[in-house]
Amino acid sequence: MPVSTAADADADVKSAPVDTMCPYRLVLEHVTSRWGVLVLIELLDRPYRFSELRRAIGRVSDRMVSEKMLTQTLQTLERDGLVHRDAKPVIPPRVDYSLTDLGREAAEQVRALALWTERRIPEVLEAREVYDTRKAAAEQG
Amino acid sequence: MPVSTAADADADVKSAPVDTMCPYRLVLEHVTSRWGVLVLIELLDRPYRFSELRRAIGRVSDRMVSEKMLTQTLQTLERDGLVHRDAKPVIPPRVDYSLTDLGREAAEQVRALALWTERRIPEVLEAREVYDTRKAAAEQG
Repeated sequence: MPVSTAADADADVKSAPVDTMCPYRLVLEHVTSRWGVLVLIELLDRPYRFSELRRAIGRVSDRMVSEKMLTQTLQTLERDGLVHRDAKPVIPPRVDYSLTDLGREAAEQVRALALWTERRIPEVLEAREVYDTRKAAAEQG
Repeated sequence: MPVSTAADADADVKSAPVDTMCPYRLVLEHVTSRWGVLVLIELLDRPYRFSELRRAIGRVSDRMVSEKMLTQTLQTLERDGLVHRDAKPVIPPRVDYSLTDLGREAAEQVRALALWTERRIPEVLEAREVYDTRKAAAEQG
């Protein structure tokens, strides 16, 4: 695949010419995206309706995901075959989101990474303190 | 941790008030960031000098990482205690980057996810074709 020039290297990922991106990188970016990670982990528990899922993510994140961003995230994961969208023909309309078998595999990998992170937070916080103290000392001395 | 209002829900993650972010979410974002993923995976092989690492990432990505972005990514991972920066007092200056024990654990989780993604690309591409065909049919009909 083409390696672009340094000139556009700082551009946002969303402006990348998507068709020239390696599919592997692109899918990895979907499953590691800010909201993709949380959607996959929440759906491991059970299927969710849209607004329920939005609230569930709000509880584990530092902020609510906007309806627009959650819609985009779900569409991307659905197109990749990771999420199943089930629109029931009832009134009022009811749409359930769940993981496909493929999505469950992805979500389990993502959850393993998330659990590792959670477990290692004390070590990370300690490392940060050492780093910041050393940096402050270097700036003073 | 505080759940922010819908008004700022679309703002970029970088503008989030970092101090109020849950450390767990923040570290997970570092290890799943666009360049963080690739740095961790490359450093699993061996230590790298800065410019070597930049080229190695260029070979597996669709674009070069800018020097600025790579510097930021390495500093973030170093502060989290995942990457070790070894500046040798020689002329010309020589700086090597390697994984710490903690970083190696993180990198192995990230690589597992990347390998899963790579293995499942055929299924993802098939799902996309089905999705696009169904969508095109729905738009015509």
